[in-house]
Amino acid sequence: MIVKALFFDVFGTLVDWRTSIARETEALLKPLGFAIDWPAFADAWRAEYQPAMTEVRERRVPFCKLDVLHRKNLERILPRFGLQSVPPAVLDDLNLAWHRLDGWPDSAPGLTRLKRKFAIAPVSNGNISLMVDLARRNGFPWDAILGSEIAGDFKPKPRVYLAACEALDLVPAQCMMVAAHASDLAAAAACGLRTGFVARPNEYGPGKGSKAPKQPVDADGASLVELAEKLGA
Amino acid sequence: MIVKALFFDVFGTLVDWRTSIARETEALLKPLGFAIDWPAFADAWRAEYQPAMTEVRERRVPFCKLDVLHRKNLERILPRFGLQSVPPAVLDDLNLAWHRLDGWPDSAPGLTRLKRKFAIAPVSNGNISLMVDLARRNGFPWDAILGSEIAGDFKPKPRVYLAACEALDLVPAQCMMVAAHASDLAAAAACGLRTGFVARPNEYGPGKGSKAPKQPVDADGASLVELAEKLGA
Repeated sequence: MIVKALFFDVFGTLVDWRTSIARETEALLKPLGFAIDWPAFADAWRAEYQPAMTEVRERRVPFCKLDVLHRKNLERILPRFGLQSVPPAVLDDLNLAWHRLDGWPDSAPGLTRLKRKFAIAPVSNGNISLMVDLARRNGFPWDAILGSEIAGDFKPKPRVYLAACEALDLVPAQCMMVAAHASDLAAAAACGLRTGFVARPNEYGPGKGSKAPKQPVDADGASLVELAEKLGA
Repeated sequence: MIVKALFFDVFGTLVDWRTSIARETEALLKPLGFAIDWPAFADAWRAEYQPAMTEVRERRVPFCKLDVLHRKNLERILPRFGLQSVPPAVLDDLNLAWHRLDGWPDSAPGLTRLKRKFAIAPVSNGNISLMVDLARRNGFPWDAILGSEIAGDFKPKPRVYLAACEALDLVPAQCMMVAAHASDLAAAAACGLRTGFVARPNEYGPGKGSKAPKQPVDADGASLVELAEKLGA
């Protein structure tokens, strides 16, 4: 069966959240006199990500936009960094740092090329407005914004992958999930989607990221441009 | 309050459904030996559009993609045109004629220009896959696909306009609905959105379409390019 659509993980796969969050946090808090380990702050904020979504996945709390979880997670880590006195308006702005992440250099060129042959959409846990802001900032030429908000749940729950296929009138075998993370690809494969791996060796800091797929995938590349090449786009 | 997003009606406002459906129907059925009044067939199919959605709006039938309603409406009008013998596979293809509509000449250039200043999204009764196909065919550079499928209802129900605002984290006054149809603009205005009118004087055939707004609007243009000019984009 011919692949007609490519779905993309975004945080880590298309954008460098760690460097961007560290930069945005420093830009907002340093002028207020705070001096902390900015990359460590980014790591701590991100570390709250999966546990917060698990609350929703297991329906202990109702589904909400990822922005809402990011804000709760931010409040949770403030004491650890001595940031309890940061004014709420600054925290509001800081929470939107996730809307101001920079793409990896090959992301926009790779997506632009892949769009010539495939329908392309993010299938991220980020909300629609977050995806729109990242796309406008980085020139990601999406055909549609799919993912958690249209599914009402968070990856790796099957509903998120299946809702994306259904939105495009495709069966899972006509869709490929592209990600730098083994768990995302394994969950997509379990739903019947094809899988594409892209290496992001610096996601968690220099040399701390995925270099090669941990399981068999249908395609892989050292960059999105290389993946486009291999997929004939 | 500053307008940050523009929402667009699609059928009639951005694309010429009547000429396109007539052409697509003729292309599929003429080779099978059928000879009917093709534009009249397009008009008849479109005439079933509002009644079918009313069934859903009033919850006599559950929400479904517009493609499903288009197919039911197609079956309904076949006898009227002596088309009962058209094979089901041809009907399947014919139903996708709605995915192959051509934009008015100013639609893509106008949207491209408006995107520089505003987030842009269709807020149409068409489903996501239909919107994606029209966008890829015509070069509509959407930031997101909003509208009926994310709202689970059809315009002019308030939920559809409000769901679009909420998806972008905007209040209605920060959003403008752009359409060639008074009823769409009136419903959007009742929800608190700004309104933009674009003239489509030939929507229902030469000279049979909207030439001027029937109620006060916040902006209007003879084309999307003129509207972009007036909105400073």
